[in-house]
Amino acid sequence: MKQTKITLEEHEIPERWYNVVADMPNKPLPPLNPATHEPIGPEALAPLFPMALIEQEVSEERWIPIPEQVREIYTQWRPTPMFRAYGLEKALDTPAHIYYKYEGVSPAGSHKPNTAVAQAFYNKEEGVKRISSETGAGQWGSALSYACQLFGLGCEVYMVRISYDQKPYRKLMMNTWGADVIPSPSETTEAGRKILAADPESPGSLGIAISEAVERAVTDPDTKYALGSVLNHVLTHQTVVGQEAITQMEKAGELPDVVIAPFGGGSNFAGLSFPFLRMNFTEGKTIRCLAVEPTSCPKLTRGVFRYDFGDAIGMTPLLPMYTLGHDFVPAKIHAGGLRYHGAGALVSQLLHDNLIEAEAVDQIESFEAGVLFARNEGIIPAPEANHAIASAIREANRAKEEGTKRVILFNLCGHGHFDMSAYEAYFSGKLERHELSQQDIDTAISKIDTPEIPETAA
Amino acid sequence: MKQTKITLEEHEIPERWYNVVADMPNKPLPPLNPATHEPIGPEALAPLFPMALIEQEVSEERWIPIPEQVREIYTQWRPTPMFRAYGLEKALDTPAHIYYKYEGVSPAGSHKPNTAVAQAFYNKEEGVKRISSETGAGQWGSALSYACQLFGLGCEVYMVRISYDQKPYRKLMMNTWGADVIPSPSETTEAGRKILAADPESPGSLGIAISEAVERAVTDPDTKYALGSVLNHVLTHQTVVGQEAITQMEKAGELPDVVIAPFGGGSNFAGLSFPFLRMNFTEGKTIRCLAVEPTSCPKLTRGVFRYDFGDAIGMTPLLPMYTLGHDFVPAKIHAGGLRYHGAGALVSQLLHDNLIEAEAVDQIESFEAGVLFARNEGIIPAPEANHAIASAIREANRAKEEGTKRVILFNLCGHGHFDMSAYEAYFSGKLERHELSQQDIDTAISKIDTPEIPETAA
Repeated sequence: MKQTKITLEEHEIPERWYNVVADMPNKPLPPLNPATHEPIGPEALAPLFPMALIEQEVSEERWIPIPEQVREIYTQWRPTPMFRAYGLEKALDTPAHIYYKYEGVSPAGSHKPNTAVAQAFYNKEEGVKRISSETGAGQWGSALSYACQLFGLGCEVYMVRISYDQKPYRKLMMNTWGADVIPSPSETTEAGRKILAADPESPGSLGIAISEAVERAVTDPDTKYALGSVLNHVLTHQTVVGQEAITQMEKAGELPDVVIAPFGGGSNFAGLSFPFLRMNFTEGKTIRCLAVEPTSCPKLTRGVFRYDFGDAIGMTPLLPMYTLGHDFVPAKIHAGGLRYHGAGALVSQLLHDNLIEAEAVDQIESFEAGVLFARNEGIIPAPEANHAIASAIREANRAKEEGTKRVILFNLCGHGHFDMSAYEAYFSGKLERHELSQQDIDTAISKIDTPEIPETAA
Repeated sequence: MKQTKITLEEHEIPERWYNVVADMPNKPLPPLNPATHEPIGPEALAPLFPMALIEQEVSEERWIPIPEQVREIYTQWRPTPMFRAYGLEKALDTPAHIYYKYEGVSPAGSHKPNTAVAQAFYNKEEGVKRISSETGAGQWGSALSYACQLFGLGCEVYMVRISYDQKPYRKLMMNTWGADVIPSPSETTEAGRKILAADPESPGSLGIAISEAVERAVTDPDTKYALGSVLNHVLTHQTVVGQEAITQMEKAGELPDVVIAPFGGGSNFAGLSFPFLRMNFTEGKTIRCLAVEPTSCPKLTRGVFRYDFGDAIGMTPLLPMYTLGHDFVPAKIHAGGLRYHGAGALVSQLLHDNLIEAEAVDQIESFEAGVLFARNEGIIPAPEANHAIASAIREANRAKEEGTKRVILFNLCGHGHFDMSAYEAYFSGKLERHELSQQDIDTAISKIDTPEIPETAA
């Protein structure tokens, strides 16, 4: 029987997260206080996060033990399967071997619960009663709702109003798990009221939703805030994905030449690639790690490396990142999880040091790839995942042109069950191509007024 | 670490299907020709099904080998996991041990691909080019679309027009897998044109859709028909579920006292329970097998055992079944898969012989159960599955009242990702209770004019 699925046993779920900082030749620069431009210490983050997560955020330890209770919850869907994409290979008539790690088997349908469960655990440990967060398309919000429910924590999700109105099913999923979902801007916060006073019909934005969620955490001692990507500890939690993938590739008897993942804020990409990067750093391997962003939001391929805010309004510390400017508003592509102006500090430093690669894919190419994949592999992917599939196909076609074997691994980070309207738009020819002109990019970058990266570091 | 998930390895996927007919004390009565009321032979089914499936339909062999290629495709999602429902047990404060088998991990999100893949395989083997079928809510249609795509078969799905209009996402799922989805009634068939001539605004029905799909198969030599439940071979294909479950219960070191599954036409229930029934028949066990139907469509608990048509219009052979009458129109509950007027011949005979049990659950009780489950187990169930959960909770509460341990196993046959509007109706208090009066039942049954079961057999 042809081996298409590579499974692991429960005891093969990793026992620790991998912290790439330990092995980076250049460590990421510290965040800055936006007022003084001085580096901030861990204590500045205390109103937002429990201490255990802040320690992870600044840790330089290579391995961070996964608490027993978190691993126990991971067993509900982990180890996740890896598949050899024989169907897709045949359709492409390529000599490449294509593998994918499938994270859509989690209850929330994506990789997001890997960190949501961990964050809920540490909050619960420190006596937090409630977690606030924001969500756009809803993947992160639903993962956090699921995790909070498991620990008996309250969960308040500020959901961008236009998504709240247009995508009721993700909201209902969060309700089913007991979360309060508030359309943002709302009357429940100062930030929301200010926006509504200026524009009662505001459709909201991820930036506004972040501001509301952060305000809730800052003003209520029982509430902390949680973020689904960008930050170091979030990226570190996701490394269970890549660690499992290494064991699975060993079972398949191959080592990938290239590892590919979609790129929004960095957690998806880091989760799969950082453990492979460790093999480059410590075992002399030369595995290419390729981040795939949408052409409509190309911070890695066309942005600048400098300090910028993590949110749209400018409430967070300044972070060293590849960015298009914190008030850059990307086109409304269906891969909502990739519509973020900047890249996390770890990934930005790695890209700056040429230790990883990035490329951009248009959403029409991404859906062509997703439908080809669904027809030959049987799983309907999330729009975010389609970007990784498109790049995997590019690599496979290049292997065919060159007549060489190439081993490709990508992260199928979630299923598309809540994104069928995007497929409808694709099938009916309503999907738009989004290619930014050089002038668009120049205009966005010229508006950035936050500090530059010091010359010594850059 | 607490063992919540019981997994199997790939080699533990069953190598054969279990055919309960071999062990039934009373074999099911043969189908009748509706014109002559004489038993029909296999040849009468030849225009509809490939010969291999017709042979399975009438087989009395205990074990039917699963073709290697079908098992290979099963590996994409099988063996499916079983879980001990520690969270639900705790919420119910019950001494019962509750287990569930989770079939929602398949690409189409339910147990339906277990038979769809097998049916597509045998059609392909016999040179069929295209399969036609009907679908209501869309679970069966999407499973068949997925399976046909894998074998390069065309797939035409007649989808009840009101579902086609109201539930576009299942339709899009089928399109993504390359199927043609036709709103029924349609202009593509005689049956459809006749209905449209009488009522151009007809919302359609499952009965009309079946008629259209059957007509396509009968009139096109390259097209065969496929059914997702009711028939013997369909039920037999589903027994991979129960066979895996037995191995998993052995690993958990327990034997269920009661095995529970939702009941539409019988495939869900048969899949889980028939292999356990075999233990009753051949190993002297006394495992209760409980079929759960909606109170709005109570053929097992309030219907009559007699010959009736499989479709609403009366095109199929007459089958021996518990039925409410082939033109009974159940209330529009959200568990679309359970809105069928009759029960398959195998299950009907077993119920008639008191070898299995049945009970009915109202949809409000079913959604209360489903939400309790989602909040404590993390998976959002399909509305059909909620019926089994409700009965499992009843059993667990009874165990608590009696102060006895009870081992309960139910089939979580699918996820609810495409049914969130049903949860919305539940949360907003818009779900209706459907209890049929005795008069409703009497009226339905009094309209049945098909032959009675012969006294000697009944």
